[in-house]
Amino acid sequence: MDSSVTMAPAGSISLGMSCQQNELTFYNSSEQLLSQLQCVAVVTMKSPPVNSLSLDFLTEFSISIEKLEMDRKCRGVILTSGSSPAGGCLMAMACDYRIMADNPKYSIGLNETLLGIVAPFWFKDTMMNTIGFRATELALQLGLLHNAPNALRIGLVDELAPEKEVLSAASTAISKWLAIPDHARQITKSMMRKPTIDRLLSHRDQDINNFVSFITKDSIQKSLQVYMERLKQRKT
Amino acid sequence: MDSSVTMAPAGSISLGMSCQQNELTFYNSSEQLLSQLQCVAVVTMKSPPVNSLSLDFLTEFSISIEKLEMDRKCRGVILTSGSSPAGGCLMAMACDYRIMADNPKYSIGLNETLLGIVAPFWFKDTMMNTIGFRATELALQLGLLHNAPNALRIGLVDELAPEKEVLSAASTAISKWLAIPDHARQITKSMMRKPTIDRLLSHRDQDINNFVSFITKDSIQKSLQVYMERLKQRKT
Amino acid sequence: MDSSVTMAPAGSISLGMSCQQNELTFYNSSEQLLSQLQCVAVVTMKSPPVNSLSLDFLTEFSISIEKLEMDRKCRGVILTSGSSPAGGCLMAMACDYRIMADNPKYSIGLNETLLGIVAPFWFKDTMMNTIGFRATELALQLGLLHNAPNALRIGLVDELAPEKEVLSAASTAISKWLAIPDHARQITKSMMRKPTIDRLLSHRDQDINNFVSFITKDSIQKSLQVYMERLKQRKT
Repeated sequence: MDSSVTMAPAGSISLGMSCQQNELTFYNSSEQLLSQLQCVAVVTMKSPPVNSLSLDFLTEFSISIEKLEMDRKCRGVILTSGSSPAGGCLMAMACDYRIMADNPKYSIGLNETLLGIVAPFWFKDTMMNTIGFRATELALQLGLLHNAPNALRIGLVDELAPEKEVLSAASTAISKWLAIPDHARQITKSMMRKPTIDRLLSHRDQDINNFVSFITKDSIQKSLQVYMERLKQRKT
Repeated sequence: MDSSVTMAPAGSISLGMSCQQNELTFYNSSEQLLSQLQCVAVVTMKSPPVNSLSLDFLTEFSISIEKLEMDRKCRGVILTSGSSPAGGCLMAMACDYRIMADNPKYSIGLNETLLGIVAPFWFKDTMMNTIGFRATELALQLGLLHNAPNALRIGLVDELAPEKEVLSAASTAISKWLAIPDHARQITKSMMRKPTIDRLLSHRDQDINNFVSFITKDSIQKSLQVYMERLKQRKT
Repeated sequence: MDSSVTMAPAGSISLGMSCQQNELTFYNSSEQLLSQLQCVAVVTMKSPPVNSLSLDFLTEFSISIEKLEMDRKCRGVILTSGSSPAGGCLMAMACDYRIMADNPKYSIGLNETLLGIVAPFWFKDTMMNTIGFRATELALQLGLLHNAPNALRIGLVDELAPEKEVLSAASTAISKWLAIPDHARQITKSMMRKPTIDRLLSHRDQDINNFVSFITKDSIQKSLQVYMERLKQRKT
């Protein structure tokens, strides 16, 4: 995942993780929202069944985000109306503000250990920035997927909204960002997040090598297979 | 602002930010408090209309604090009975304990972005030490000024007290500090805060240069002017 | 105290700090628990009157933990059913999960300053990982010993249980750890804690020298003596 995507999805409103069609749709504006606010872009992810973060999907997502970033009037807010496990949680944490649909069937978290794999250090760093050391340690070790009230309680999301009001809640939230002089807010954001991004960039090759050698091990492949089988059984 | 002031106002009780006379008054003792406790110094800031942190003011403040620090029996507590925006909030965070008058007209926070400027990295470091990464990120980006209950909730202050009881609450609080063997408490405090102070000192010149070149830009001066105009309009 | 003990007491359930006999008992299994779960070891500390962390005691403890670590099926959980001041608190914080008996006579904390001494930097680092910077600063400066509800509120323990149900609560808790693929959980734990352990190891000699020269000072010895006298008086 490109760092500019994971760290600064400016202007994006990303919709959930459980959509119907096999495409990533990029709307430069949404009629409904434009009536309330100028310059709110809605990015909807639609790659069924679960918005897998494939290379194609992420490439298209990166391009969408880069287009938005060139529009200098854009600010960052995300809303997750679906479940956000693993990479979906990372995407949410990379945003400025997180609104979660208050629906018991949704959850958010870094559940890598449940699959027998390990969240990369930059997932950990980003989660520590969001919810602190101890909550991250528990969440990562146990692969916790938090429901909406728990996610709010530990600070993994900033706000809950009824599922049908997630977009308008995002609209209200983004208006606070729009009210701040842009240059000052951007420098401030960079001051906060740059050390984490720099750490990712300087260890990027090493991280990729580690991951590739880990994920291709027989034992890990077997562990992933067991997990996938269990997922399938749960569905049927 | 001198680091010895912002980081260790030992023994000081600083009163509010909205006083009447144009002076910084330094009392070596307060009759009212001395009846309850030995060695409580009260430093009252009185530089109307808003205790602007001018060079004169800060110089006098530094001298007062240095005098107190020479009196080895002094410990650090502050109380803010008025509003504490920007530098006032930094002064409060530099203290050992924060008591805020529970009055809806007061607020505390680093509101630099609202003025179109950026809080220096050592403001950010000190706020992160006080309320953690995520709350700092939100507070700095949005220039949040917290009312008393919110300030208590996020840990920006440690205690609320009715405005008339702020001094006696400080008196009670400071008695906990007075009960601890002094050398052990001082070494412990230094162990906690030294890394932050060292970071400030080692980047001091760079920080000053950055700030001066930033603040003298035409666009920033214009941004500040707009903010000042709006403040004036709100008053009239 | 050996780092492998303080940082990774895998598989251990350590009972309280106020036991009756002069021994550290190591059970490789507990009948009561084995009926519910495979592979739960119970380590009971019994060195009256207060489980002083003497060299003998810690050596025996280290050996017990190392034996457990060789049994690869073991996971880490601790429960403290007694009071956990100073080193006892460090032991608790080194564990994966803390359950405290909900009894008003028990407390937990790093109370070093009350004795006129200073918690080492690696106590501070471990506490910061557990409860964050600001709560650590207050706790260390004031030598706070928290009762069970306060310890839970600030996150120094994860759960309270009635004293008689501490063991079964630990059993329930450990089952969450047992459900996670082991290799993934261990790497994740190491990713979280290794920086803190590395910092301890790289400053170990310096820390020991500092401590020895500090603790042997006449003034510090006198301070400790005063504290011990006061403890004795409280008992009689």
